[in-house]
Amino acid sequence: MSFSFQLTGQDERARAGVIHTSHGEILTPVFMPVGTRATVKTLAPSDLEQIGAGIILANTYHLYLRPGADIVHRAGGLHGFMNWSHPILTDSGGFQVMSLQGLRKITPEGVRFQSHIDGSYHFFTPENVIAVQNLLGADIIMSFDECTPYPATRDYAAASLRLTLNWARKGQEAHQRRADQALFGIVQGGIYEDLREESAKSLMEMDFPGYAVGGLAVGEPKTDLLRITAALDQILPTDKPRYLMGVGFPGDLVDNIERGIDMFDCVMPTRNARKGSVFTWKGKIIIKAAQFKEDFSPLDADCDCYTCRNFSRAYLRHLFSVDEILGLRLASLHSLYFYLELMREAREAILQKRFSDFKMNRCRHLDHTIGSEE
Amino acid sequence: MSFSFQLTGQDERARAGVIHTSHGEILTPVFMPVGTRATVKTLAPSDLEQIGAGIILANTYHLYLRPGADIVHRAGGLHGFMNWSHPILTDSGGFQVMSLQGLRKITPEGVRFQSHIDGSYHFFTPENVIAVQNLLGADIIMSFDECTPYPATRDYAAASLRLTLNWARKGQEAHQRRADQALFGIVQGGIYEDLREESAKSLMEMDFPGYAVGGLAVGEPKTDLLRITAALDQILPTDKPRYLMGVGFPGDLVDNIERGIDMFDCVMPTRNARKGSVFTWKGKIIIKAAQFKEDFSPLDADCDCYTCRNFSRAYLRHLFSVDEILGLRLASLHSLYFYLELMREAREAILQKRFSDFKMNRCRHLDHTIGSEE
Repeated sequence: MSFSFQLTGQDERARAGVIHTSHGEILTPVFMPVGTRATVKTLAPSDLEQIGAGIILANTYHLYLRPGADIVHRAGGLHGFMNWSHPILTDSGGFQVMSLQGLRKITPEGVRFQSHIDGSYHFFTPENVIAVQNLLGADIIMSFDECTPYPATRDYAAASLRLTLNWARKGQEAHQRRADQALFGIVQGGIYEDLREESAKSLMEMDFPGYAVGGLAVGEPKTDLLRITAALDQILPTDKPRYLMGVGFPGDLVDNIERGIDMFDCVMPTRNARKGSVFTWKGKIIIKAAQFKEDFSPLDADCDCYTCRNFSRAYLRHLFSVDEILGLRLASLHSLYFYLELMREAREAILQKRFSDFKMNRCRHLDHTIGSEE
Repeated sequence: MSFSFQLTGQDERARAGVIHTSHGEILTPVFMPVGTRATVKTLAPSDLEQIGAGIILANTYHLYLRPGADIVHRAGGLHGFMNWSHPILTDSGGFQVMSLQGLRKITPEGVRFQSHIDGSYHFFTPENVIAVQNLLGADIIMSFDECTPYPATRDYAAASLRLTLNWARKGQEAHQRRADQALFGIVQGGIYEDLREESAKSLMEMDFPGYAVGGLAVGEPKTDLLRITAALDQILPTDKPRYLMGVGFPGDLVDNIERGIDMFDCVMPTRNARKGSVFTWKGKIIIKAAQFKEDFSPLDADCDCYTCRNFSRAYLRHLFSVDEILGLRLASLHSLYFYLELMREAREAILQKRFSDFKMNRCRHLDHTIGSEE
């Protein structure tokens, strides 16, 4: 097994570590740019290397439908297909098929669903989702799970987490590439701490190389999310990476690093960038705001990304005003660079035992907004 | 005057030369990527440097409307605004306002038109179009002209070319930055050789640093276009660059280099790329063709562009199938690289007195098509 995790530093509950994979090391805490369809939207692999992305994410559901797992496999797996020689994680597609309201039916054996593209019928099982991920060839793959919705009754959440546990067991047995693909289990249980504990402990008995926290950031109050991650920090093993799925705003990442989370993914930086808002240490900037019309300073004068080193707010505003693709790209590049920088600085702060100061000072403007929507 | 042109080689009528500008040298024959709104669609300046673009083009009409010439001027001109430190040419906007059928009225003083964006009224004169270009600050700027439509009667074409001559004179007098911006005259006259001769000789009396051939590639048979450029080759001075506006397919460039043209611009490589067809030495490739579904070879195995060195036809087909922006970008990058390579090889062939062989052999597949539209 080429996968391992080492905890290299800790400050209170915040953790710094290194994940080893057959495609290289990942320094944690880490943010994983989302490349759903085997491309991080608007960016080339060379851009992702330039901003120092340690690992990127792709999606089983989308790649299963197009171009199909066989084609990706014959292209040399995802690494060969998209020309990314560093680590990759594939999500199981559980979240996507659960989102197909009205187009899917959950049974103990799996989920029958209709493609969002052509309405064709498909059946995802805990076993075949692993088989697809074996073909895609990512370094980290995910169990098939039911992403418990919010709100959910205690009874629903309990039944749901047990279904997910059963699927985790089946997936683990079906996994054919244990030597080079690490399969993570996914903790469910809604906002109920005792159910989360049951889920985590049952998964830990199966001994996964890493544990994800799923079913959060699905509409629940942020206090519930933080309560659950804080509770799980007391339960999950310290010698395995913890991955909080689908989170979030920059401040959310900092709050959850503080609660012992190591890995994050979210469409937030790239999706918001394409809609014209980018993140900086001074807050969120609304690029199209009228105040930037003749602002020839960069998005963030302290940022070293290609966008900030070379282009002004006025130019970026122009690109968005005239719907030029370069605007989407330069904004995406900046926001991802910022997310990765946020993780790099958080890591340094943890290693130097000053995470609390980092959060209080360096991160104090993260929730601001600069410029108003027109 | 920092602008000059040296003819450095000739093979039959085909010419190789060097244009000197205050932002660097341009080797001719040259293809100028089109960056209408101060961005070559989907590409960053770093990409354009990587593929060796010697000069790019931007458009007066579009930049006058958005963001406005004043803003570009205050940003340090186009070079500063879009962060391009190499030569730039701005088109006068004549072609664009003439295209606003029903929204414009031509008078001896200029063209009254309505913005295609908000319907607001504007008046372009031969003088204010130069003033706008003085603010934009490109190295080469263009006279305001009436792009004579095709078909046009002899009488219409004659009146039109005289209007353009009058405007060229007015623009030349209005030009305020003769030291660092070279103003080109534009030859009109439709498909009538004697009118073209009248136009060219009258402009030559005004002594422009370069001459453009306008009003071609507007629907006339290709034989007419080639007849006109061949005729002008006998008339235009050998010591000034000749720019054929808006041309064309790869084969068209070669045919017109053969007739003494030095400079070209066209949206063809980038626009077609965004629609999923790219140019190679072996012909045009329709990226979405079913035959490329499992074709793991590059677009062109002999091409050294970033796209061909790193990605397969199957991956590009996937990106186009799922509407990912990276596809548009990788296709645009390849096609522009190919156009620039075509010019570099043509130049070498001219310098080595083997242009005819280059055209007959190296260029023999340019008109082929690989893959069918679905």
